[in-house]
Amino acid sequence: MTTFLQNLPGDLTDLDSQLDDQLDLSPQAQDLLFRRARTANTFTDEPVSDEKVRAIYVLAKWGPTSMNNQPLRIVLVRSPAARNRLVRTLSEGNKAKTAAAPLVAILAVDHAFHEKLPKTFPHFTAARDMFAANDALREQSANLNGALQVAYFLLAVRAAGLAAGPMTGYDADALNASFFADSQHKVLAVVNIGKPGPGAYRERAPRLDFDEVVTTA
Amino acid sequence: MTTFLQNLPGDLTDLDSQLDDQLDLSPQAQDLLFRRARTANTFTDEPVSDEKVRAIYVLAKWGPTSMNNQPLRIVLVRSPAARNRLVRTLSEGNKAKTAAAPLVAILAVDHAFHEKLPKTFPHFTAARDMFAANDALREQSANLNGALQVAYFLLAVRAAGLAAGPMTGYDADALNASFFADSQHKVLAVVNIGKPGPGAYRERAPRLDFDEVVTTA
Repeated sequence: MTTFLQNLPGDLTDLDSQLDDQLDLSPQAQDLLFRRARTANTFTDEPVSDEKVRAIYVLAKWGPTSMNNQPLRIVLVRSPAARNRLVRTLSEGNKAKTAAAPLVAILAVDHAFHEKLPKTFPHFTAARDMFAANDALREQSANLNGALQVAYFLLAVRAAGLAAGPMTGYDADALNASFFADSQHKVLAVVNIGKPGPGAYRERAPRLDFDEVVTTA
Repeated sequence: MTTFLQNLPGDLTDLDSQLDDQLDLSPQAQDLLFRRARTANTFTDEPVSDEKVRAIYVLAKWGPTSMNNQPLRIVLVRSPAARNRLVRTLSEGNKAKTAAAPLVAILAVDHAFHEKLPKTFPHFTAARDMFAANDALREQSANLNGALQVAYFLLAVRAAGLAAGPMTGYDADALNASFFADSQHKVLAVVNIGKPGPGAYRERAPRLDFDEVVTTA
């Protein structure tokens, strides 16, 4: 962890470390996942192995979802042909960095997630039929829980000592037609993954203050 | 961290620990946030202080969002009157545990998040007007990024050595009318927070296998 952290921008003492004693998670882990972790825009050439991706998934899968529905599906875009097809659907500003990243993953949500509920939520046998009968409920639950799992995946990439570059700038209809024409999968995000390269990080944008976000009733 | 982990169910050696050498995050932190952390259904009486909530937010706020838009808003339901109003909107199965939890938070998304973009995304001054002019884009971005931030918040609760009990079983229209009649906030989840109590954990439900979720193109 040390080497990766040493290469991240930011000074620990500036980053709310006065609240450290309120948390059980170590300051190093807080930095790796949240405080000093950053969205990367360039990457080195170092490949990302399938074994690494497996470890990332095997960590991220434990994050909670409603009724354990786990709608996230992941496409690793490994072949040059698939990479080209993907890049064509991206916004201009995302094309070059995605063409060059060591690994690109499409994070999608399966709107037919309910077909797996007999496995994932076995103690409530009516769950599958409840979602099958209500398209609006199924879509809402898919999008909420798919996004939760996108977040777990991004943090698990960081847990693996890698940087993530999540993007939502693409033509979603074109991307879905190119990759998911035969399924009910819909893209939620595209993520570049690898070791951060030169100039990977933009200046950090400000976060909202506690009092702008949290109120008491 | 040790005491909290000791009280969580699960045997480390069963939990994919053969992949530990692929990750930089320590096994203890993996357990605290993902592997042995569990959704809790009962809690002790121990209060959750405002200082603890501040530390949770100050960690969670660093998680990435599209264009740094940070649409999550959090209501700490502290007063008995507000707790009663909230409980009335919940599904039957969620009422008793929410009435008894030491802290309950409503996690909502602000559909007027774009009003804060001049602060949070200052280098792209057209961002605010772009979202103001496109309700569909604004709603989609709010829901996706609000859900990402729900996930960051849940993991930050765990980072604080507390258990979270997220719920989506409620009458959303009634909840929004009761708490957000004067704003563009919409509930995404309700979360009970505290130290896990007796019988807090149900049997762990299965996760999807790697090969059910990840494909290569």
